[in-house]
Amino acid sequence: MQSIDNLYLEATHMLIEPGPVVLVTTHYRGKSNIMTLSSLIMLQQNPPFLLGLVLGPWNYSYKALYKTRECVISIPTQEMASTVVNIGNCSGEDEDKFSKFNLTPLPALKVGAPLIAECFANIECKVTDNTLVGKYSFFILQSVNVWTDPEHKERRTLHHNGDGTFVIDGEILDLKDKMVKWPEYL
Amino acid sequence: MQSIDNLYLEATHMLIEPGPVVLVTTHYRGKSNIMTLSSLIMLQQNPPFLLGLVLGPWNYSYKALYKTRECVISIPTQEMASTVVNIGNCSGEDEDKFSKFNLTPLPALKVGAPLIAECFANIECKVTDNTLVGKYSFFILQSVNVWTDPEHKERRTLHHNGDGTFVIDGEILDLKDKMVKWPEYL
Repeated sequence: MQSIDNLYLEATHMLIEPGPVVLVTTHYRGKSNIMTLSSLIMLQQNPPFLLGLVLGPWNYSYKALYKTRECVISIPTQEMASTVVNIGNCSGEDEDKFSKFNLTPLPALKVGAPLIAECFANIECKVTDNTLVGKYSFFILQSVNVWTDPEHKERRTLHHNGDGTFVIDGEILDLKDKMVKWPEYL
Repeated sequence: MQSIDNLYLEATHMLIEPGPVVLVTTHYRGKSNIMTLSSLIMLQQNPPFLLGLVLGPWNYSYKALYKTRECVISIPTQEMASTVVNIGNCSGEDEDKFSKFNLTPLPALKVGAPLIAECFANIECKVTDNTLVGKYSFFILQSVNVWTDPEHKERRTLHHNGDGTFVIDGEILDLKDKMVKWPEYL
């Protein structure tokens, strides 16, 4: 698993904008946890690279994120679909999910929450604004380090239809030559 | 194109959670406009059904959304990919995009912005909170009416990779039987 240095924090929006299901790790009081999440948005595509996510008091990870102000957003690919759903269907209050699901925690560089070695990409994040947490359970995070694993050839992510069915990435269309207005993003 | 009545506003999150590229229509001072957008999130899955989107002063639609506090989020499917990109690469300041791209505006029920007949789903939205617009260009919207077209059999949406390439929805995995924790959403 290879780090992309800070020059390439731009990769954050290429990972998030397609709308994949993600895993979110936290570390609080000596214990790491993982949850599944689909409510994620790229808020700002220029530095600082900001994301928003919905994570509420009904989630066991809420207290860890609120207190530590750190997490890792890990992006699983399609072969992990069952694990992704099962992670979302048990609570870190009762389980050590890394152990239960045979996932490998790796140390992050800038946050205390662990990376997940089995995911093809990991984004280290720090909470920069929690003023919307009370009203909308909406955390604003800054991407502070992005990792991808060049050995992880599978890149097809999952999208949750909101009803327990998931879409796997299919065919890729290259329409770069039509994107004349926003060359700085390409 | 058939309306889903208010009992089914829940459909909003099934349309948004997968993270599709969407079109956003507005209507301001007698003129309708369309823009392409990927920065969208389902903020609240219980009533009121809330969404958030990033739309900034660099977008011609910004003033229309800010002033009228209304828009329609239309969800295109894969056969519209070129149109979706081309809409994002010209400005409503210079063009009538409905006319230019041969799209059909239809009257919405609860907002002044038009539906797009060629999209398989349309979500009428009202801005409920614009206090984050100044800092994050982030509008919070309430879904007030959802339409789907039962004749529109193509349902494969597009996801933007952030670099001018798009992923088309592929295979669907049904993992409903594993979703034991959140039955109320299924």
